[in-house]
Amino acid sequence: MKKHNFNAGPSILPSEVFAQAAEAMVNYQDSGLSLLEISHRSKEFEAVIAEAEALVRELLGLTDDFAVLFLSGGASSQFFMAPMNLLNEGETAGYLDTGSWSSKAIKEAKLFGKVEVLASSKAENYAYIPSQVEVPGHLKYLHLTSNNTIFGTQYHWWPAASVPLVADMSSDIFSRPVDVSRFGLIYAGAQKNMGPAGVTLVILRKDLAGKAQRPLPAMLDYQVHIENGSMYNTPPVYAIYLSMLTLRWIKEQGGLKAMDKRNREKARLFYHELDHNPLFKGNVIAPEDRSLMNATFLPLRPELEKPFLDQCKAAGIEGLKGHRSVGGFRASMYNAMPVESVQVLVEVMKDFARANG
Amino acid sequence: MKKHNFNAGPSILPSEVFAQAAEAMVNYQDSGLSLLEISHRSKEFEAVIAEAEALVRELLGLTDDFAVLFLSGGASSQFFMAPMNLLNEGETAGYLDTGSWSSKAIKEAKLFGKVEVLASSKAENYAYIPSQVEVPGHLKYLHLTSNNTIFGTQYHWWPAASVPLVADMSSDIFSRPVDVSRFGLIYAGAQKNMGPAGVTLVILRKDLAGKAQRPLPAMLDYQVHIENGSMYNTPPVYAIYLSMLTLRWIKEQGGLKAMDKRNREKARLFYHELDHNPLFKGNVIAPEDRSLMNATFLPLRPELEKPFLDQCKAAGIEGLKGHRSVGGFRASMYNAMPVESVQVLVEVMKDFARANG
Repeated sequence: MKKHNFNAGPSILPSEVFAQAAEAMVNYQDSGLSLLEISHRSKEFEAVIAEAEALVRELLGLTDDFAVLFLSGGASSQFFMAPMNLLNEGETAGYLDTGSWSSKAIKEAKLFGKVEVLASSKAENYAYIPSQVEVPGHLKYLHLTSNNTIFGTQYHWWPAASVPLVADMSSDIFSRPVDVSRFGLIYAGAQKNMGPAGVTLVILRKDLAGKAQRPLPAMLDYQVHIENGSMYNTPPVYAIYLSMLTLRWIKEQGGLKAMDKRNREKARLFYHELDHNPLFKGNVIAPEDRSLMNATFLPLRPELEKPFLDQCKAAGIEGLKGHRSVGGFRASMYNAMPVESVQVLVEVMKDFARANG
Repeated sequence: MKKHNFNAGPSILPSEVFAQAAEAMVNYQDSGLSLLEISHRSKEFEAVIAEAEALVRELLGLTDDFAVLFLSGGASSQFFMAPMNLLNEGETAGYLDTGSWSSKAIKEAKLFGKVEVLASSKAENYAYIPSQVEVPGHLKYLHLTSNNTIFGTQYHWWPAASVPLVADMSSDIFSRPVDVSRFGLIYAGAQKNMGPAGVTLVILRKDLAGKAQRPLPAMLDYQVHIENGSMYNTPPVYAIYLSMLTLRWIKEQGGLKAMDKRNREKARLFYHELDHNPLFKGNVIAPEDRSLMNATFLPLRPELEKPFLDQCKAAGIEGLKGHRSVGGFRASMYNAMPVESVQVLVEVMKDFARANG
């Protein structure tokens, strides 16, 4: 049976990418060796990481003012690396609290400097994005989570600020064009739109690196990684290779504008059904804050949850169960998900309403 | 042409492992999905990480006193995580300096506490392992690098010490039996004998975790990873899967005693030729300290270097060029390397001596 993969992450990647990666696993470019058993300093892997960086730059339109790094440790490690590198003792950073990941980032930042939480939607279980944020000019940076995978909200605008924005874009990077000039630092765990779990993309304005006054271990110092081209130590070779293949695929599909168009079409299809189906309701209370990546929704009657998931499963739909913080359902519709899969989900919702309405 | 892969790392893994991993990349256990596109909290991946942990425990004979973690960031991140977690301010740790990796570990430890370097072979370009080390009882731990990939030396004994040993075993873990009861902490980047680059094994005596007095970011706190079964954040799924497959392979081959026997046979073959060939000399000055994993050797006349590498290449031998810190050649002979590949290298050395002697 054809599967429709709505997993929130690790999540769907293009099948072409998996096919190429499987070949590279046993025989890379007809070398007789796996890409996994050659040196990361070989000309073969140097070409892979160079192409990955070039694709990041091209897709996002990055100028040379930005460094592009491929690190490990996930976005969770950037929660502390960002303040460790950018926020000296006594300095203040602003944070916007829009979900679990934001609040983890806030907790880590407090270990290194002062933190002002400028806005929070926590009291409403993060069901909207706080608007009209005043950003004081004395802040070192303003941190936000661009898309909230768990709660199904997404920033569709950037706060006006005279200070650099720092964003965790783990779950929506490369899903739409971004005005990168507004940002000092963008980081993203790869495992949604960029590649597999195991590599973290860091895009940093170079002038912000190397300014930490505290002593930093080499692996936690952005400047060290910049100077070593992400190869201070052995990088996660295969995760970078798969990311490069995925970025190539995004480019071949028409780049971020094409991704945005396709993602909007899927979201329109899904949310249209959600707004008209009598058995479900959206979790997000402000429709303008709905995520194009992760649609969170609930059954109007709790007893409908299990039969709906069963019906989804029978249609080949995987990974629709909601996160425990929200309950209900979550449909993750990342770049690689075809429109067809959303159509299948919408049909199941319609059928389910006819049978149980 | 059949390849003989002497790369120092990333390096040879069993071809059966690559074949299985390639299949899991496109269709994991006939699910219709790649292992890379499902949740790390799925029952499928939970089974993978549980089996990986069980294999680590079985192969090394670990008691429940030890935690087994699969982290990211490489051994280079353990250089600072170890002292950050185990060494409070004002406390002292002992370090043995036997190569580049040891000296990086020493540098990072100095950021967190006092460091006593009890012995160093640096003055001789690390061409031996210092013996007869006195280990004071006031130390918090004694750190060593069990195998020095770059310089070709290896500990074949453990220093007498009343304090826990902490070891970077990146390049020889699972290559031989180890009396784990001597150690408080063992860490290893996977990319030699255990799996691909992208995951780091940490084996920690549980009573040593959670004792740090300094505030730690969650991702840098061993206790957090123990409490979350290595899943505080999304782990490097695929690198863990490949490690599990490799550990399975080691077990099927007969475990660490079988690995040790095979590795000794390869080393005996190679070093016998090295000691009898008139054109090469070993880099390690104390034969009893020679590594079973990485044999470093030099041409007696510098002009022989290039023609020898050319002749190796013609025989399908890959990755034999030495590290720039030593020069010459390095034959890495990890678990997965068949005896046959060492025989091919030995034949090339003999042929080369006949032609150029």
